[in-house]
Amino acid sequence: MMLEKLKSRLAQISDLENAAAVLDWDQQTHMPPGGANARAEQRATLATLSHELFTAAETGSLLEQAEREREGAAAESDAAALLRVTRRDYDRAIKLPADLVAEITRTRALAQEVWTRARPANDYASFAPWLEKTIELTRRAAACWGYRDRLYDALLDQYEPGTTTSDVEAMFNELKPGLVSLVRAIVERGTPVDDAVLHREYDVARQREFSERLVRALGYDFTHGRQDTAAHPFCTSFSRDDVRITTRFDLHFISQALLASVHEAGHALYEQGCPPEFERTPLRGGASMGVHESQSRLWENLVGRSQGFWQHFFPALRETFPNPLADTDAERFWRALCKVTPSAIRVEADEVTYNLHILLRFDLENDLLEGRLSAADAPAAWNARMAEYLGLTPPDDTHGILQDIHWSLGIMGYFPTYSIGNLLAAQLWEKANQDMPELPAQIARGEFAPLLGWLREKIHRHGRKYLPGELIQRATGEPLQSRSYLRYLTEKYSELYQL
Amino acid sequence: MMLEKLKSRLAQISDLENAAAVLDWDQQTHMPPGGANARAEQRATLATLSHELFTAAETGSLLEQAEREREGAAAESDAAALLRVTRRDYDRAIKLPADLVAEITRTRALAQEVWTRARPANDYASFAPWLEKTIELTRRAAACWGYRDRLYDALLDQYEPGTTTSDVEAMFNELKPGLVSLVRAIVERGTPVDDAVLHREYDVARQREFSERLVRALGYDFTHGRQDTAAHPFCTSFSRDDVRITTRFDLHFISQALLASVHEAGHALYEQGCPPEFERTPLRGGASMGVHESQSRLWENLVGRSQGFWQHFFPALRETFPNPLADTDAERFWRALCKVTPSAIRVEADEVTYNLHILLRFDLENDLLEGRLSAADAPAAWNARMAEYLGLTPPDDTHGILQDIHWSLGIMGYFPTYSIGNLLAAQLWEKANQDMPELPAQIARGEFAPLLGWLREKIHRHGRKYLPGELIQRATGEPLQSRSYLRYLTEKYSELYQL
Repeated sequence: MMLEKLKSRLAQISDLENAAAVLDWDQQTHMPPGGANARAEQRATLATLSHELFTAAETGSLLEQAEREREGAAAESDAAALLRVTRRDYDRAIKLPADLVAEITRTRALAQEVWTRARPANDYASFAPWLEKTIELTRRAAACWGYRDRLYDALLDQYEPGTTTSDVEAMFNELKPGLVSLVRAIVERGTPVDDAVLHREYDVARQREFSERLVRALGYDFTHGRQDTAAHPFCTSFSRDDVRITTRFDLHFISQALLASVHEAGHALYEQGCPPEFERTPLRGGASMGVHESQSRLWENLVGRSQGFWQHFFPALRETFPNPLADTDAERFWRALCKVTPSAIRVEADEVTYNLHILLRFDLENDLLEGRLSAADAPAAWNARMAEYLGLTPPDDTHGILQDIHWSLGIMGYFPTYSIGNLLAAQLWEKANQDMPELPAQIARGEFAPLLGWLREKIHRHGRKYLPGELIQRATGEPLQSRSYLRYLTEKYSELYQL
Repeated sequence: MMLEKLKSRLAQISDLENAAAVLDWDQQTHMPPGGANARAEQRATLATLSHELFTAAETGSLLEQAEREREGAAAESDAAALLRVTRRDYDRAIKLPADLVAEITRTRALAQEVWTRARPANDYASFAPWLEKTIELTRRAAACWGYRDRLYDALLDQYEPGTTTSDVEAMFNELKPGLVSLVRAIVERGTPVDDAVLHREYDVARQREFSERLVRALGYDFTHGRQDTAAHPFCTSFSRDDVRITTRFDLHFISQALLASVHEAGHALYEQGCPPEFERTPLRGGASMGVHESQSRLWENLVGRSQGFWQHFFPALRETFPNPLADTDAERFWRALCKVTPSAIRVEADEVTYNLHILLRFDLENDLLEGRLSAADAPAAWNARMAEYLGLTPPDDTHGILQDIHWSLGIMGYFPTYSIGNLLAAQLWEKANQDMPELPAQIARGEFAPLLGWLREKIHRHGRKYLPGELIQRATGEPLQSRSYLRYLTEKYSELYQL
């Protein structure tokens, strides 16, 4: 009874959030430039109203009553999970006082504007005070949320509930030596991998068609989704029955569009696999940002950058692009996709160097937040770590500390979820291969249903029901670890680079 | 002070309505089919929340206090207009009890589903009980809203504030004899106008380009709008800075897309011309549905179906479509666009027969609502009037009483706004020609800025500030009348059909 009342309130909140997601999708894909100011107002109003509805005393009282009603009921049930997740979200949401929320919102708008101009102008000095301010506000928010050991725990908890700063440190401590030495070995080996073929001319309309063909083959359902173009590809969903992906096309870079489509389809398959009974409840969606990223990375890298995948798709690709691919075969194309090049830019990084970009940001965020580093000294610290981890120095701050949008949006504590996604992707892949020894052969035949079925069963159907730690344990029989990932990289790249 | 508080509440309501409009636009242009159920929930929640916010006692109290604060202030000011319009909307909105609103909403959803199946199946019998129910609910709503003379007054007031049923009757009494005899004369004259050229093959991508070229030339601003494809073309706006149009393309019917684009651009120019200071207030938008329709009809018919318009655009059109237009010239193309053919379907009607379709619906709505006609007898009444007004009998109810979606949505009292739009378009056109004798020559040179400027000054910049009657009086120096329209039709079609 009280549970039903609570659920109908949560359903309205979910509708507001989904409506906001539609407005965001439109803004990134179709909105005319003049629409930006009005759209900002509309999104602010939707955010305010859903926050007000959720943090209202009435919600707290319904939640309490529903909890009392359900006391002693099975902890495994969806209803119990709904109450657990709602309690966690609610307790977190009511901890920030309204004036701090308002100050964070104001600062974000201004900081983002400054960053948008500072980045292309290589003008870190103008952004530094806004980074200082963002750090101060983040500290205050973390104090409101509370934490046991490290300030960063309170931030991680938003994106990766149950994961602590020391978990992430342990993860990177395992990863770092292996990654650094693998990168060094590859760089020293010279460049036996040539990716010039990827940069020939590929008709954009055909790229679009082929990318749709790829994601459809993986199981992405176009009657419940669509693909559009966006400057920064993303996946968004308004219900399990309307999950949309975006990609971007470059006439002279075929793999960018194809792998971005596969990556976003990985996110989308997760959302499309959420059970219908979780619709309009807080149980819809992914267990965490890291688990979500594990799905996109698994399809993009473990599947989409595998030799078998291109054994299957390359003939069709060459039929679509006979000229640029005339002198290439499946194996050479696959090798080109796996080229490793340390570079200054995170979003262009290959799967070997990627996590070192994340480690750098994780280090810096902690140093900044815990007062060991000032905003003024941050660019030097950034560049020193780039040299240590990747053996290079960014040409300027535009390609260094100013490259990411996150800090300008007040987002700190998010970066580690990318690495968690990478690690978990490899861990799930290893387990899937144990459970289904036929998997590589299936992929080489273009059969993706068994893998999708396995992910649906192990991950997708649970929505937000379990904490990421529980979900990973259930799916793989062990906690998150980095061994699978290091094994995967070492094996694949030792062969590719004849190490 | 109180006015500011009221305005910030109204701004939130306006944001919710604009967000709902984005969701509707998406649904009609891009949404995958699977998204429909979730979208219905999202739209229902946005509608509920904005209705709740608007009808809340707090809104009424802010409004009252703001009115007291402003007592004695200039009636001409925007602030006074804002209070007047808000008071009118508020008093109307709070009159319907929540249980009636809920019953209307439920009935609409079910009736629309029945109609969607009944129309293609020619199954009026299944829809009749839902029409009965809709009539009963409409009567109850009208009783809540209140009216002086005729039940229909309460309905008209939603779409055409200040216009009464007897105004509309007087309008049709003037129109009907002239229209019926003009149609008869044209039919008896035979068919000197041949429109076969419109039905040749026209590449759709080029139709799209050309339609964009047309509306851009009229003054539609693509940095604050865009054009998409929709099954039923419409215009929608989320702010004056984001006003979108849609059209539809038929490979074998060139004028459909072009004139639909021009029609929707007419609506859009009105919205884009609303002053920035009306943003996020109830003053944004059009004075009424009829005034809005006058803008679309003026551009579509008075401009887009004029000889001068095609003198200017035909050369470019023939360059775009050299094959289908090889044997045609500007004059023959223009004549084809003006062919008159009495037909059973309203949305396919030409400008001579169109208003007779509306008169028929206006008659029937009044007869049904005032109890002179039962739903069971309505198809016979429909067909009898078609014979009387247009000299034809629909082949079946699919092409007769079942053709329009309006009644299935519970919309009654709306149809007359289409005719008001037609009349007002001609009345404005006559006045604009008096004020600017160069107008026809300007149009023949493709100069639309003077006409747009005149409309901006007379109509657009006032938003909802004036009642339609006041606005028309200000713009043309007289109340709405049908003489201009009859003059326009008689002159144009006497020449075209050599009457």
